[in-house]
Amino acid sequence: MTKLLNDPADAVPDALRGLALAHPELAVDVGARVVSRAGGTRPGKVGLVSGGGSGHEPLHAGFVGHGMLDAAACGAVFTSPVPDQVLAATRAASGGAGVLHVVKNYTGDVLNFRMAAELADDDGIAVETVLVDDDVAVTDSTYTAGRRGTGATLFVEKVVGAAAEEGLLLGELAALGREVVQRSRSFGVALSACTVPGSDKPGFELEPGRMEVGIGIHGEPGREQVPVGTAREIAAISVGAIADDAPLGGEDVLVLVNGTGATPLLELQVLAADVHAAVQERGARVVRMLVGDYVTSLEMAGAMVSVCRLDERLTRLWDAPVATPALRWGR
Amino acid sequence: MTKLLNDPADAVPDALRGLALAHPELAVDVGARVVSRAGGTRPGKVGLVSGGGSGHEPLHAGFVGHGMLDAAACGAVFTSPVPDQVLAATRAASGGAGVLHVVKNYTGDVLNFRMAAELADDDGIAVETVLVDDDVAVTDSTYTAGRRGTGATLFVEKVVGAAAEEGLLLGELAALGREVVQRSRSFGVALSACTVPGSDKPGFELEPGRMEVGIGIHGEPGREQVPVGTAREIAAISVGAIADDAPLGGEDVLVLVNGTGATPLLELQVLAADVHAAVQERGARVVRMLVGDYVTSLEMAGAMVSVCRLDERLTRLWDAPVATPALRWGR
Repeated sequence: MTKLLNDPADAVPDALRGLALAHPELAVDVGARVVSRAGGTRPGKVGLVSGGGSGHEPLHAGFVGHGMLDAAACGAVFTSPVPDQVLAATRAASGGAGVLHVVKNYTGDVLNFRMAAELADDDGIAVETVLVDDDVAVTDSTYTAGRRGTGATLFVEKVVGAAAEEGLLLGELAALGREVVQRSRSFGVALSACTVPGSDKPGFELEPGRMEVGIGIHGEPGREQVPVGTAREIAAISVGAIADDAPLGGEDVLVLVNGTGATPLLELQVLAADVHAAVQERGARVVRMLVGDYVTSLEMAGAMVSVCRLDERLTRLWDAPVATPALRWGR
Repeated sequence: MTKLLNDPADAVPDALRGLALAHPELAVDVGARVVSRAGGTRPGKVGLVSGGGSGHEPLHAGFVGHGMLDAAACGAVFTSPVPDQVLAATRAASGGAGVLHVVKNYTGDVLNFRMAAELADDDGIAVETVLVDDDVAVTDSTYTAGRRGTGATLFVEKVVGAAAEEGLLLGELAALGREVVQRSRSFGVALSACTVPGSDKPGFELEPGRMEVGIGIHGEPGREQVPVGTAREIAAISVGAIADDAPLGGEDVLVLVNGTGATPLLELQVLAADVHAAVQERGARVVRMLVGDYVTSLEMAGAMVSVCRLDERLTRLWDAPVATPALRWGR
């Protein structure tokens, strides 16, 4: 796989240098690989921290800013940040009212965020954790015990981020984050695999004309390989898997049609129309839809569908102003 | 090439349906393939229209909204919109003060926009045209007589769009657009080719380990094929080609590091840091930098660098509020 890099071992710090140059509103600590708001966290506001392996850009550093994260810890590609990084992000995000960790359910992330939370506690920073495990495709995989965390991470970061700006307390934000997780489900397919920089082979082999169904976000294998379907068929498979897990009824939903990195926006928009139709056919109303590359897997071609059941409060928090590199509206 | 589509012949209308569902603030005429602002153009404001072949998303429909375009005409993939489409977009964008056409320099676009301008004139709508030809790589190509229009199209649409909101007149906006073109240069490389939906082969053949230097945005061949370089080398080649054409001195510049569709954001950020360094080494100051997929070529992997020499007025217009699906800040 041809990549646009210098030394593959420097991919993450090199990318963080580019992020910093394009976004002076961020404070980027290239050495610690921690990104936070240049202005810091407002005193009295709960800090919101996420992080994980790199290779999923714009997640998480691209979601640092008003109405979303206070800091992100960026691990090596597809590798959890170490506890010291998470601790540094937690300190950067602390405004004296505690810090909430948003953690995707991968074994390394869970362990390292837990250790960082204990270290932060020794520092006198109270930490609560929301675990995101929205992917209905598989339980247990190369990287996980239990379900994987994917697109719903964005939902949690946006909704809880808005609530944190409004002054909610640490425990309230943790409960809200868990509610968003509980209301969210995701499922995706890949039309091509991806290769970690410096590696000489992709995460799985895919014959031409076939797709991997039920993918994760690390290029790991999914449920099965089948002949490539049309956008309409892929929408039916994805929405069907989501509805099999948690029936879609008469509620209002937020839908993310997320590109995995190498999918043209033209194709994502085609899929979005079919996903919209598939969700509505099941009786739910799509009241908000986001289409683009938000949680990626390097140069994987494919898409992941995430659905969150809304209520009036969640809709209001979703619509609240946000100003980050990758998500921005309302101010 | 595996694509996420239904019938390839329906790719553009299918994608427009998805765009409309995700963006209720746009008026999408799927039949005419014209996208405009749902609220129409403010009476007395000059309308700003662009368009061209599809396959370059988010260009142009993703730039319709406050502070940028009033309407976009979406042709078939890599094919100019027909005059009737451009006329429909011109009518949709007309607020009684004339309409400015922003046209990338491809033979089909130039002819069809010219014909539409004549038809609009018969309707009593005054039209001026700004031709964008910023790509320094080649003169004359598969699609063009003269230089091709690429990344600077975004600069023109943003700067002129801001000035139109401020109430500038048609002739003033045309002069401003031409000034932005004159101040802008672009150059890009591809690490992979792309295939038009329904076609069975890519626009050029690329051996593994080689890159196409001096690409256009239609998957057409560029200057030459050479062994793949590092991000630092690619930055040096691109910035060097731009500076060879118009020397970079002590001025302030805006830089776009644009992904061509299948390039991971991680890689674009790495390149951005090297492009920043290469521009600064030549004595210019990078005061604004935009990194992401803005002018794409389907699933092509690669990147294009665009540089615009700023002055105080252009910087202010670049920073002015914009609210479109793909570019949004300041309000």
